Formats: sequence, C-alpha cells, structure tokens
Amino acid sequence: MSQPLRITVWNEGVHESNGAPASMATDYPDGMHGAIAAGLAGLIPDAQIRTAVLADPEHGLTEEILASTDVLLWWGHIAHGQVSDEVVERVKQHVLGGMGLLVLHSGHFSKIFISLMGTTCSLLWRNEGERELVWTVNPTHPIAQGIPQPLVIPHQEMYGEFFDIPDPDDLVFISSFTGGEVFRSGVTFHRGRGRIFYFSPGDQEYPVYQQPAIHQVLANGVRWAAQPDVPRVAPSVGHPDREWFARS
Amino acid sequence: MSQPLRITVWNEGVHESNGAPASMATDYPDGMHGAIAAGLAGLIPDAQIRTAVLADPEHGLTEEILASTDVLLWWGHIAHGQVSDEVVERVKQHVLGGMGLLVLHSGHFSKIFISLMGTTCSLLWRNEGERELVWTVNPTHPIAQGIPQPLVIPHQEMYGEFFDIPDPDDLVFISSFTGGEVFRSGVTFHRGRGRIFYFSPGDQEYPVYQQPAIHQVLANGVRWAAQPDVPRVAPSVGHPDREWFARS
Amino acid sequence: MSQPLRITVWNEGVHESNGAPASMATDYPDGMHGAIAAGLAGLIPDAQIRTAVLADPEHGLTEEILASTDVLLWWGHIAHGQVSDEVVERVKQHVLGGMGLLVLHSGHFSKIFISLMGTTCSLLWRNEGERELVWTVNPTHPIAQGIPQPLVIPHQEMYGEFFDIPDPDDLVFISSFTGGEVFRSGVTFHRGRGRIFYFSPGDQEYPVYQQPAIHQVLANGVRWAAQPDVPRVAPSVGHPDREWFARS
Amino acid sequence: MSQPLRITVWNEGVHESNGAPASMATDYPDGMHGAIAAGLAGLIPDAQIRTAVLADPEHGLTEEILASTDVLLWWGHIAHGQVSDEVVERVKQHVLGGMGLLVLHSGHFSKIFISLMGTTCSLLWRNEGERELVWTVNPTHPIAQGIPQPLVIPHQEMYGEFFDIPDPDDLVFISSFTGGEVFRSGVTFHRGRGRIFYFSPGDQEYPVYQQPAIHQVLANGVRWAAQPDVPRVAPSVGHPDREWFARS
Repeated sequence: MSQPLRITVWNEGVHESNGAPASMATDYPDGMHGAIAAGLAGLIPDAQIRTAVLADPEHGLTEEILASTDVLLWWGHIAHGQVSDEVVERVKQHVLGGMGLLVLHSGHFSKIFISLMGTTCSLLWRNEGERELVWTVNPTHPIAQGIPQPLVIPHQEMYGEFFDIPDPDDLVFISSFTGGEVFRSGVTFHRGRGRIFYFSPGDQEYPVYQQPAIHQVLANGVRWAAQPDVPRVAPSVGHPDREWFARS
Repeated sequence: MSQPLRITVWNEGVHESNGAPASMATDYPDGMHGAIAAGLAGLIPDAQIRTAVLADPEHGLTEEILASTDVLLWWGHIAHGQVSDEVVERVKQHVLGGMGLLVLHSGHFSKIFISLMGTTCSLLWRNEGERELVWTVNPTHPIAQGIPQPLVIPHQEMYGEFFDIPDPDDLVFISSFTGGEVFRSGVTFHRGRGRIFYFSPGDQEYPVYQQPAIHQVLANGVRWAAQPDVPRVAPSVGHPDREWFARS
Repeated sequence: MSQPLRITVWNEGVHESNGAPASMATDYPDGMHGAIAAGLAGLIPDAQIRTAVLADPEHGLTEEILASTDVLLWWGHIAHGQVSDEVVERVKQHVLGGMGLLVLHSGHFSKIFISLMGTTCSLLWRNEGERELVWTVNPTHPIAQGIPQPLVIPHQEMYGEFFDIPDPDDLVFISSFTGGEVFRSGVTFHRGRGRIFYFSPGDQEYPVYQQPAIHQVLANGVRWAAQPDVPRVAPSVGHPDREWFARS
Repeated sequence: MSQPLRITVWNEGVHESNGAPASMATDYPDGMHGAIAAGLAGLIPDAQIRTAVLADPEHGLTEEILASTDVLLWWGHIAHGQVSDEVVERVKQHVLGGMGLLVLHSGHFSKIFISLMGTTCSLLWRNEGERELVWTVNPTHPIAQGIPQPLVIPHQEMYGEFFDIPDPDDLVFISSFTGGEVFRSGVTFHRGRGRIFYFSPGDQEYPVYQQPAIHQVLANGVRWAAQPDVPRVAPSVGHPDREWFARS
C-alpha cells in the first residue's frame, strides 16, 4: 500500500465543450471530471490523478495509460455511440485483468458497462430536479464508511426501478426520490479479476459532484476497487475458437 | 403437484381479542388471519387452509399440525415474548427440514425469524399512515408475477433501512414511503431445506390484508415456498456435542 | 401451466457430421441433441421438443422458432466461431426477454454465454477420462430434486477452477475429479427477464448424455428456466444512444 | 489504520490439556492457539495478539477483552457444550456490533457459529488423513491474495457437502479430498455490523496450523474482518418485546 493510487477520471466531456446546459459553466467550471478529480485529491492526498476525455487521441485511454491505472472512473451520456469499440475492448481487458472501474450515473448505458453486465442496463427515468435520498443498506461495506444516513441530494434526475442489471455482489445504497421511485443506486460487481462499482447520483444539470459526501463515496469506491499489489493479468476474451484450441 | 397445498396461517391474535385498535372490527371482522386465509383461498382454490393463534393449546402449532403443513405464515407484534420457546424450536426444526415460512410485517421481531436470521432484525420505524409504494426489482422472480409496478398501499406504517438482516438470497421488492424512507420489503432466504419469504406490508391499523394485490403476493409466496413433493427431513440442531458424537 | 413446454435443443452438430471421435457413432447414434431430446421427452411427457444444428438455415434459430421456444439448450465446442453474430444477438434478445437458456459443457465458450456473462468464461481443462462426482450443495433448489448425492459420471473430461464467471445467483452443484480438481458445475443466473442454467457434465467423447440422472438434471433445469405464462418482453439492447434518446 | 490490530485467538484447549491425540505434543507444543498466534504474528508484525481458552475465567472472553478485540478467532471441538451461554451471547453482541470473527474447522458446530447462521451447520465427515486441495474460486477476494492454487494439505480430516449453512456472501475456497468429496472450505458472511469468515482446514490430529500458506489465509482473513476505524455498535438482540416497545 506504499505506492500512491493511480486514478484516471474519464468523462466524455461533451456537455463541457457544448456549454449545454448553461449551468455547467457555474456548476462545473473545470468540467465534471475536474470536480471529481478535485474531490478525490482532497480525500486521497497521495493519489496520482489524471483526467481524460472523448476528444483526446484514443479517448485518452491508450494501453500505456490503462496499464498504469489502478482505478478508472467513467462518466458518459450523450456520446456513448462515439466511443470506439477498440477502446471499449481495451478497457474491458484491463477490468477483467484487475483494474478497478467506477461507472457513474448515465454511464449505465455506456458500452463498457453494458458489455460487462450482459444485460440492457435500462432503467426508469424522469428529470424534474427532485430530491434524492441515498440510504445505506450495508453499513459494514467499505464504501459506506462515513456516509450520512441518508445522504441528501437536493436536486437530481430520477433513476428508478426496474434497473436491468445482474444481481450485484453487494447492494450498498438504495435511493428514493420525491416522486416515490426507488433505485439500487450503489452496487458492486466483480468481473474476472476486476472490481466494479456503479453509483448513480451525479448529473450534468446539478452540482452533485461538488457535494463532499459524494466525494467521500467516490473516494471509498476508489479505495475499495483498487488492487495495487495484484499484478494485472492478461485475460483472453478474443476469438472463442482461439481460446479453445489454445487449451488443447 | 396433485395433492392440495396445506397452509397454516398463524396470528398472535391479540389485537383481535383486545379490540385495539378499534378499526380492527371493521378492517378485519375475521381477524387478520381470517383476511389472509380468505385471500389465499381465492387464489389457490384447492388449498387446505387452517388458522391458529397464540391462545390455542401449544399456540395451535403441535407437531402433528406442523408435520402436515407445507407453508406456515406468521404474524406477530405485541406478544412475541409470550410465544413458548419450545414451540419456536419446533417450528424451526420444521423450517430447516423443508417447511415453507412466510414472515409478515412486525413478525420481523418474532423469535422464529430472529433465530433463523442470526441478527437483530431491527429496523427504522414510524407510524403516520403514509403511502407505501412497493417496487419490483426482480421481475423474473416467481413471487413478482402479476404484481403491479408499483403496488400502491394508501396508508401504512413506515419500515425503513437499515434493516438488520443477512443478505437475502433474492431481493424481490423495495418500498418507499411518503417520508422518503426505503425498505427491502420482499426478501427470500433458504435455511436448511426450508424456504423463507419475508414481506413487510401489513399492519393491524390499516386494511392492507384486504388488498387483492397483497393477496397475490402472499399466494405467490406460498406457492414458491411450498415443496410438497420433498419429504420433510429431520434436522438435528439440538445439543452440538450430540451432533458431533453422532458423527463419530 | 396447462400448455406444453416448448423446448429447442441446439447442437452445433459438427462432431456428429465429422465422425470424430469415432465413439460418437455408438455413444450417440442420433447425435448428442438426439440423446438430450429423448431424455427430456421421457421426463416431460407433454413437451414439444425440437432440435436444431449449425448447418440449418439461420442455424435453425429463426425469429419464429425462438418466439415459440420456452427453453433453449445450447451445446457447442469446435465451431463457436462459425455461429453468426446476428443469430447470437437474436438469441440474446430472447433470453433477456424471458426465454430460458441451458448452456451445456463446452458451451461455456459459446458467444451467447460469453456475451451474457461479460467475462472470459475460461476454465482449467484436461481430458483423461476421469471419474467426475457431482455434489449437490443446495438441496432446496428445484434443479437438485431427485439427483443422487453424489451423481457419479464414470468417465469425463475435467473442467476445473478458476472458472471465470460472475458470481451465480445460485450454486447448485460442485464437481470433483480423480485428479483432485473442483468445479462449480451447476450454476444459475438471471439476465434481464430470462433464467440461465449452466451445467458442465457432458462431452462428445463420453456417453454422459445417456445417463438417466443427467436427463433428470436437464429436465429439472428446463422446468426451472421455463416461464410459459410470462409474455416475452422485447428488450432493447441495440445501439446505446438510441436507447438514451428514446428515453428523452 | 495506524493503530495495531487487536486479535484474540480462542481455543477450547481441551486436546492440549488432555494430551489426546498424542501427536499434539509434537505438532502443537504451544497448543493450536499458540501455533495460530505465532503464524499471525509473523505476518501482521504490529498486531497485538492474545490467546484465551475454555478454562480461563469467563473463558477468557470478558466484556473488557471483547471490547478491545478487533478480530476473534474461534477453535472448538469436543467441548462446545461447556461454553457458557452467557459468554456466547456476549460474543454474539460484539460480532453484531462490528467485531470480526474467524471460525475454524470443527468450530462449525460451536454455539456461536450455529447461533449466527440459524442453521444446523452439519456436514459430511470422515477422518482418514487424506490429502485436501484448497482451490481459490474468487481470486479477486482479499482473503485469496498470495494463496497457492491449489493449496495442498498432505493429511487432513475430510469435511464434505452438504454443509448446512446459509448462502455465503462470498465463496472464496472449495476443497476436494482424496475420497472425491468437495467442501465449501472458505466462506464469508456479514451479520449485523460484523464480518465473519469460516475456514475449514485445521485439525488437532494434523499439523495444518503449522503450514505457512494456512497462516497466510488466516492473516488475510483477520485483515479482511477487522474494522478498526468503525466504532463498535451496541446491537439490541435481547428480549424481542423490549425491542418493540423501545420503538413505540
């Protein structure tokens, strides 16, 4: 645990460059990835934190970057389809090989999350800026440490059930919304040798990623997902036939 | 599956005999157990349904009754402490040996449920007659078949997280309340060879057990928990040393 | 439950047509799919059972066939790569929409299984015709009913851990082999609205699919995975962006 | 994380004092608890490690000792019935309140484990000094780090399925034995706010607790179960009625 954690915060960055919604300029002057990175830096002082966006060469997710990343955070929304399949496959190999992955909010519909889950990852949805309450249902879980019960988000987009995901390894948080909907808002999985945490709060229209309690959840998630002492394994998910004959 | 299901609905029956709350007389003229039994009878036409209450000899749960019960439903509230430890142990042996068990509402604090869970089974609580919405989060589960999304209960006691139970085998329903609390309101477990379903809606102050959709959940739960074709096994949970020497 | 179950047994059918291994001719005169179909027919008398192979038009898995299939069984080995991506996607949509799926033996490396799991599905492997013992670790599970403890397979290919799958919903069987390896040989999942059962025993070199106890496992699996009374839902797993905009 | 971990190794200590089997004298000159404590001390250098035995006043498990214990290890076999119910209840309160618990080998039949599980915890059993292979089935789990695949124990008592426990949170290890039996030999649970790890290898007849790889599993388990930064919560599992009225 002596070496610093290496964190990469990925954001498609399209709302930031398009200036829509207009509130982005005041809510997130450094982009959502900037707000997340700053929040993490405050809570994991020795971390090495990088950010990357869709517009970067190879979306900023080269083999070299991924190989030196302990935990990747992923935020996407209106540009899921613009993410290259090659980069998605590269990220998947690293997750299966041991890299931690935090998928945030509308990232539930990202190619990488859908590919790792095997389901549609669809959900109920409505955006009326309602109050979200995030309740801890697993107080023993490392990700729940130090989080208020409930965590109050004054204004948020509503995500509701049925959320079409596999049963998670651990259900950490359940949210309710003013309209009465509920959502499994904090869930963990492992796939191959990698640990995955999906956390739904956070949206381009609301300054959720400026809340200290949200920073705490994300920092807890990063620490939980990181396996800095475990060598990255090279999984082999390519052509199934190649797999098979390699075994014979 | 040709023989009829044998169902025993157990209710402490103290609110019924005390006449408190006064609304019981109109909400439940035949007692809560009567309303539940009638609801099940309408949906499982060939079932053999009995009821039993605390005041019955051996609480109506003799060895003979349990041995001829496929699924036992349990409602208790203000008289948990009056249930004999001997009867609780007898019920437990049958559950571990294959009898189905549905634990209802305030039955979360019954001796039988606490003993099977191993935890405190405590929860957050407030009674202001709020609206409860019951959301299905596992639409593939047999217990969720035919249940509206959400199931609306106009007035209910609030049960909230943290609910101190082991992780369930299956999380079927999550509820929200007007106050914003959430609750894992429909959860399954197996213990030994028996199947257990805990379902939180239902209270002596509100006519919840008169709602057809609630009857449907209970009937689904009974069908799911029943193993009529599986011989009842005699578990041996008595003195640990006896166990051990029996093996040598 | 009054209508008969509609079962489709899919086999790539390449060992059958190639005549390798030579033992196929005596072990499986009607092909492995023929042996499986006959075994199911004996245990689910009213079932409508079809078979299909890789060489059929659209691999025998047209939209019409899948729409009228309650449970699909899948056996593949040396021709995973020849299965059309379009057909795999079609099967996946039906599974996510509610069709049951049994994946058999070397089907762990099929495109459909890998796609639903999100992992490599790789495993340890050795073929020396060893004895496999299949132990029930969840005797309450419907798939374990009537199965001997242990189920003995005289000669089998060894599949061992680590088996790279997500944590299953239910772990039903664990196998051991003469060499001392262990394997989670019977595991269930749900994905979307479909139920999935993976069962590892069965191989082209050994007459495993002629054993009555294996037929019983498969018949139990089919009954468990079937949801004949639930309308097939149309999931939407196509282009993520299309999903998203459909919600706005 | 700066304060040292506080570990208490509890052993009934009856084989040690009775001198049966005779091999104890050479296998475990300082008792099994001594061997375990020495193994942990070598791998968690800054830990504060105490031992306690049945013959100690209050079995060495006073309120003061438990309140200053982060993780308790429990070994028992022929004297389960001599452990005072009052001490068992005290230990249970601490586990539910956040103390870690490692239950070892024949401790599966201890009062504390049975009480926390709610099942019989019975298993298949035979003692012929066979080879046990411990296979990791969850390589991402913290308890599996640095453990050989498989871990070989030359001579061991056989524990086999069906092991009557609730579904574990995480299945980490599965063992096989020369006779072909299998066993879920490393499983985790949380109950209340406490983390529990059951690990089956280890017996009074064989020097299992002298193997470095076994020490590594136990040290990993201790680190995983410890929550040194989380205040011990006082659960309330006493009289159910008291609970209920406290809420009203």
